[in-house]
Amino acid sequence: MTAARPTVVIIGAGFGGLYAARKLAGQPVDVVLIDRHNFHTFSPLLYQVATSGLDPSEVAYPVRAIFRNKGNVRILLGEVQTIDRAAKTVTVAYDSTQRVERYDYLIVAAGSKTHYFGLDQIETHGFELKDLADAVVLRNHTLKLFEYAAWADDLALRQALTTVVIVGGGPTGLEMAGALYELYVHVLHNEFAKQLGDFKGRVILVEMQDHLLQPYPKRLQAAARRQLENLGVEVILGRSVVDAAPDHVALDDGTVIPTYTLVWAAGVKASPVAEMLDVPLERGGRVPVRPTMQLIGDDDVYVAGDMAHLLDKEGKPYPMLIPVAKQQGMLAARNILRRLKGEPQRDFKYIDRGIMATIGRSRAVAWIFYKIQLTGFLAWLAWLGLHLITLVGFRNRLNVLVNWAWNYFTYDRSVRLILEHSPHEQELPALADGFLLASIPEPEPELVREV
Amino acid sequence: MTAARPTVVIIGAGFGGLYAARKLAGQPVDVVLIDRHNFHTFSPLLYQVATSGLDPSEVAYPVRAIFRNKGNVRILLGEVQTIDRAAKTVTVAYDSTQRVERYDYLIVAAGSKTHYFGLDQIETHGFELKDLADAVVLRNHTLKLFEYAAWADDLALRQALTTVVIVGGGPTGLEMAGALYELYVHVLHNEFAKQLGDFKGRVILVEMQDHLLQPYPKRLQAAARRQLENLGVEVILGRSVVDAAPDHVALDDGTVIPTYTLVWAAGVKASPVAEMLDVPLERGGRVPVRPTMQLIGDDDVYVAGDMAHLLDKEGKPYPMLIPVAKQQGMLAARNILRRLKGEPQRDFKYIDRGIMATIGRSRAVAWIFYKIQLTGFLAWLAWLGLHLITLVGFRNRLNVLVNWAWNYFTYDRSVRLILEHSPHEQELPALADGFLLASIPEPEPELVREV
Repeated sequence: MTAARPTVVIIGAGFGGLYAARKLAGQPVDVVLIDRHNFHTFSPLLYQVATSGLDPSEVAYPVRAIFRNKGNVRILLGEVQTIDRAAKTVTVAYDSTQRVERYDYLIVAAGSKTHYFGLDQIETHGFELKDLADAVVLRNHTLKLFEYAAWADDLALRQALTTVVIVGGGPTGLEMAGALYELYVHVLHNEFAKQLGDFKGRVILVEMQDHLLQPYPKRLQAAARRQLENLGVEVILGRSVVDAAPDHVALDDGTVIPTYTLVWAAGVKASPVAEMLDVPLERGGRVPVRPTMQLIGDDDVYVAGDMAHLLDKEGKPYPMLIPVAKQQGMLAARNILRRLKGEPQRDFKYIDRGIMATIGRSRAVAWIFYKIQLTGFLAWLAWLGLHLITLVGFRNRLNVLVNWAWNYFTYDRSVRLILEHSPHEQELPALADGFLLASIPEPEPELVREV
Repeated sequence: MTAARPTVVIIGAGFGGLYAARKLAGQPVDVVLIDRHNFHTFSPLLYQVATSGLDPSEVAYPVRAIFRNKGNVRILLGEVQTIDRAAKTVTVAYDSTQRVERYDYLIVAAGSKTHYFGLDQIETHGFELKDLADAVVLRNHTLKLFEYAAWADDLALRQALTTVVIVGGGPTGLEMAGALYELYVHVLHNEFAKQLGDFKGRVILVEMQDHLLQPYPKRLQAAARRQLENLGVEVILGRSVVDAAPDHVALDDGTVIPTYTLVWAAGVKASPVAEMLDVPLERGGRVPVRPTMQLIGDDDVYVAGDMAHLLDKEGKPYPMLIPVAKQQGMLAARNILRRLKGEPQRDFKYIDRGIMATIGRSRAVAWIFYKIQLTGFLAWLAWLGLHLITLVGFRNRLNVLVNWAWNYFTYDRSVRLILEHSPHEQELPALADGFLLASIPEPEPELVREV
């Protein structure tokens, strides 16, 4: 400890970092919370943004607003460049400007990114759903392809334009497939019927394993598949995507699916921030930590959430899930406060209430406390309630409720705007030119009059 | 008339085109409605999007949804390239693809664009507020500059980063200035206080004339100015902006204001689609029309809204206002239907209920029927009610109401996301390459298996 009020730097305002910062707010520490975005993203609902169900602002909440009344939490918008554990500093960049933040304690919770497993063609042509911008890009893209289809006279081309291949049978893949197909059936087919006739868009979900939802019991895996197929989604199990191009996707059995939209939801790996810690990493680039969430060999650095590699009682690493991240973030914060009081560090004990995934309107599977297995409408109600409760911010909850109710009762999706760049977008040449350091000359006093 | 069911092509889904199409829906004509966007924009509330008060989808409504159950209205997303009045065709482009639409009757309602009066420096560095993408760009920009300011140690630079100059004392300028200053005072100052201290952002409104709100009576002009200044906006009258650079704006009296944000709301001119009609144009590039909204010398072409130049009883051209556009669009549609029934064309009679402008929370001026002059809270209530009633779509109204109530009672603005491009955005190489015409080879049959 170097000062009466030690500085805690938190990297990442996802669930791990946000809950750590909340725990430290109002405590006798100075907190610097660093994130690339000025908002926290409620990632479980990103697929709703991608499928025109919700507005971006309904799944995102400005970080500054969350800590508005917390005098000891300072927000820094920027990207972490380096971590120097010897000097106890973090270098942060915003455009071309850099600054160095000193820490007494560091909580690294930079989350995960999409893992393409070295499949470059897929990385080049695939879409992903890891952040808000991805969701908006995917929304624009799928809506635009329907408009293209309305221009196309060739039937095979129309079919390719309105076929989406989603890779990955986890919750993200299922949620995306279900919601997208419902957008097709209930909204787009209807609106394009005049121009496209009887013709139907396709949503194809590809999973390498022989079942969906890997960690779930067999009964729920089968229920998820049945619900998806009843809806109209085509489910391909035991196959993997081996190649992609702008106009098609190739599977390992030689099948070629003509499509202009490949959504890759088949894997994540730790954020590259992990490499800045300069320790040997575990599978998926995750950082091995002690049960106290401390880095091995460095008591002042804590790692939480998707980035942290910690084994549970059964010897398996804790999954990359929001409840794990939240609880690890809070534990890291609590352990820092305990050290300030001279108390011993506590170990991570995961309070696990179960897992759930939604498949569309009124369809879901839930495994509550790993005991109760719910499917269909009841599971969906449980999912709905949980997500509404955990959404950050009252206004968000209210608007999300309005939109969900609207979508539910009308089968409509109102947010389907193809909103692309403006020609008036400015590249901010001066701002992008390191100007905060030196490049802008002070305005000359004789030119500056009081107006 | 060439067919039993004549085709009416409408260019533009703004207020003129939209109301024309609504009037023609369900009538014995085939309608093709062409627009660059897949949504209609409720432009009077764009400034709310730019100042983080509303979500983009709350001021925009998908055009296909509006005409979902209208079998005779076909939507075409694309940009008009040429109009051939001799051949009675319109060429439309979508990316690099073109198609030709034949018309029996044409309604041209492509609206207006920002007029820079040849001031290239201002066009290069200025922001505008004519469409939804502009509003999002301006929101990102102003929020980002506050984040920059939090990084800047130099006070003069901080001040420049958080100073916005708005040019134009019309409703758009006033609304933008008022809402932006409230965002500063009620939200940003508060949230950045930890990092920026006491310091205050500035909003400066510059108007060339000696008064704001040109067509209003003197009492309301003075009230608008007083309300703006009470709020904290700096109003400069009788000065014009003569030059701009990324980091400053210069006025005609030599004043230089250091700023990174110039919003140009000082003039509009007719859309360049006007030039495609190949007739001599009036001031502001507007198309002279007969009182029936028909083009002079071409009975089958109607022009409505901002693009149309038509003189009122006092010999002044009708203003570029939404009620004028709506009523002219409807008249054009009605006159087409009258011709089909062999009835005579009617002349435009403007039903004018007055004008109003809002200045921020609880502040406005209204001149109802050009008789009743309202200022302050009452005028604001009138403004609020009118805009809520005229918003397209029930869901939009409900969400807008929730957001307005939230903003009003909490002084908060929840939608302040800096949402920029994703690195995963795809440029759609194949799609952008004229592929709809010829460039994509048909998938080879032996490669396409049923999956």
